Amino acid sequence: MCDVNVYILKDGAEELYFENVDTIKPEQGKIYLKNLFGEQKVLEGNIKEIALLKHRIVLEKK
Amino acid sequence: MCDVNVYILKDGAEELYFENVDTIKPEQGKIYLKNLFGEQKVLEGNIKEIALLKHRIVLEKK
Repeated sequence: MCDVNVYILKDGAEELYFENVDTIKPEQGKIYLKNLFGEQKVLEGNIKEIALLKHRIVLEKK
Repeated sequence: MCDVNVYILKDGAEELYFENVDTIKPEQGKIYLKNLFGEQKVLEGNIKEIALLKHRIVLEKK
């Protein structure tokens, strides 16, 4: 499976935010996330790093 | 394997830009990409959509 876990960078540390994420859409300063089970989350922030072999995406909160 | 192909949105159509991508880092308006073989590309633009189950990431050129 090609799913990833999404972490948020907070005070220099990474915090797990959302697991098994399938789609990510940045739009007007917000990031829309959907996981394999159809659950959704929205966050104000930016994508900081995507590392697919490590199954991780790091976001930075605004 | 969890690698994706990166497409660029151009005049409403998607063009294949880089295959087997592992890492993506947006930084100061540029997007730094690296594939499974260590090859690198840099593009001025934004991430428009990430769809991991479809193994695709779409970028938008500035």
